Amino acid sequence: MADRFTVVVMLLMSTSALALKKGELLDMSFSFDGNSLSYPGLGFFELTSQYRGPLNAIPWVEYNNILSPEHVGTHMDAPIHVSEGKLHIDEIPLSRFTCPAVRIDITEKTKLDRDYGMTVQDLQDWEEVYGKIPDDCLLFVYTGWGAFYPDRLAYQGTTRNDTFLDEQGKSLVHSPGVAPEAATWLLENRKISGLGLDAPSLDIGQDTVFKTHQILLGANVYGVENVANLDKLPNTGAWVYAFPMKIVGGSGGSVRLVAQLKADTSGAVMLSASFVTLLGLISVLF
Amino acid sequence: MADRFTVVVMLLMSTSALALKKGELLDMSFSFDGNSLSYPGLGFFELTSQYRGPLNAIPWVEYNNILSPEHVGTHMDAPIHVSEGKLHIDEIPLSRFTCPAVRIDITEKTKLDRDYGMTVQDLQDWEEVYGKIPDDCLLFVYTGWGAFYPDRLAYQGTTRNDTFLDEQGKSLVHSPGVAPEAATWLLENRKISGLGLDAPSLDIGQDTVFKTHQILLGANVYGVENVANLDKLPNTGAWVYAFPMKIVGGSGGSVRLVAQLKADTSGAVMLSASFVTLLGLISVLF
Repeated sequence: MADRFTVVVMLLMSTSALALKKGELLDMSFSFDGNSLSYPGLGFFELTSQYRGPLNAIPWVEYNNILSPEHVGTHMDAPIHVSEGKLHIDEIPLSRFTCPAVRIDITEKTKLDRDYGMTVQDLQDWEEVYGKIPDDCLLFVYTGWGAFYPDRLAYQGTTRNDTFLDEQGKSLVHSPGVAPEAATWLLENRKISGLGLDAPSLDIGQDTVFKTHQILLGANVYGVENVANLDKLPNTGAWVYAFPMKIVGGSGGSVRLVAQLKADTSGAVMLSASFVTLLGLISVLF
Repeated sequence: MADRFTVVVMLLMSTSALALKKGELLDMSFSFDGNSLSYPGLGFFELTSQYRGPLNAIPWVEYNNILSPEHVGTHMDAPIHVSEGKLHIDEIPLSRFTCPAVRIDITEKTKLDRDYGMTVQDLQDWEEVYGKIPDDCLLFVYTGWGAFYPDRLAYQGTTRNDTFLDEQGKSLVHSPGVAPEAATWLLENRKISGLGLDAPSLDIGQDTVFKTHQILLGANVYGVENVANLDKLPNTGAWVYAFPMKIVGGSGGSVRLVAQLKADTSGAVMLSASFVTLLGLISVLF
């Protein structure tokens, strides 16, 4: 029980680091440029100038072309990405892109193990403090890896950008993610719209069959990868806008991800969290 | 005065066609595919399959590459697009993308003249019914041209996709937009965040120097072109989310434009509009 108590106290301490004020907007998208990261083998974002300068009687005209994988930078995985017959990016209902945001902080675990996948226990520990994960939310897993983006080696554990597999078929990528058991638990016990994280993949980098992808996307839950500024998102109390590029037949697409604190909930969260701590203490003591 | 009264009644009638319910989301972006329109000469959106099928132990994997002009489909014009030294798309503050939406309906004028540009009088007529255009709003000009998208001939007035100029340097494009005088009036008398419309360009198609672009973008006001579903947006009472793709050094970028009716304002709008009509009647009679 003492361990459980420590977990609760740690979660409470992370709550007190709220950085968002009521109504304030948080930009959770990384910028697109030549350094934008995609999973090794998927290619690069490239901006090519089409025109820049005076044009006829117009003093200045400037426009560019974009060449980009669907899955680069801060982007959404549509269910079809790894699940035949499921939704393309343009087929996901609009209402699923604007919803409550919750954040599960697993940074203490990933510091010790860069191949860490969020567990069922992590979810249950979070719920002990904040209550049930709300229906139709976008659940963010805060791995801490966002701080490394776009340093390929630090973020992905390899400088390779052409393939994620070595000659023995093992993954070259080392990055945290979500354990398949946690994905299954979420589907069976809760009802989320999507799952996002500040890491290269929903799966830990060492998983070569992308089990967590298969589980979540197979249930028409969308993913959001390479999320920015998760350190500034409160664990509860925010709202998120995750409207993706509407590509006909797209398996994914860029999303300008934005969060907003809908109410000044920091006080309420602290109060309710303190109450849960008190209950925890009572259960330890008696 | 009778003409002014007719205008007010017409505007009131258009208000009663509110299609959005409170909280409901309105998708104001067209889908991206090979038929997506850009201004003649800017190029095409293209989705190229990179992989589709089983991969090693994964039953299904599907992902694509995007080749796209910045200015295709429903997209934002950053100030730099026609104004040297002004903001790139990634430099516009996030707060300017989520704001009240207002709609000026000029469909009765464009039916008679496909080269019609919204005038100062149109803005003043609107304000007579709905009050002052709110600060920091995204102002939408409803031309009715959205109904023609993506029929290139109907929408742009020409089937040419390689250039908008004929051999004499005259514009081949015939489409409604915003008269430069109206753009100047907005800058000098009101404070808008952006201006969007359901047409190929902020300028009328016949303008070859893009004066309205130069005026608005030169003042760091952004534009949104090829807006979808403006027929369903109420004239007031909606909120809009216009978060564009964050391209470093971009002159524009795709935006998944979404509106939401923040409160059930139809009743309030009708009441206040009726009051204005009453005032109008009184001023006609006395």
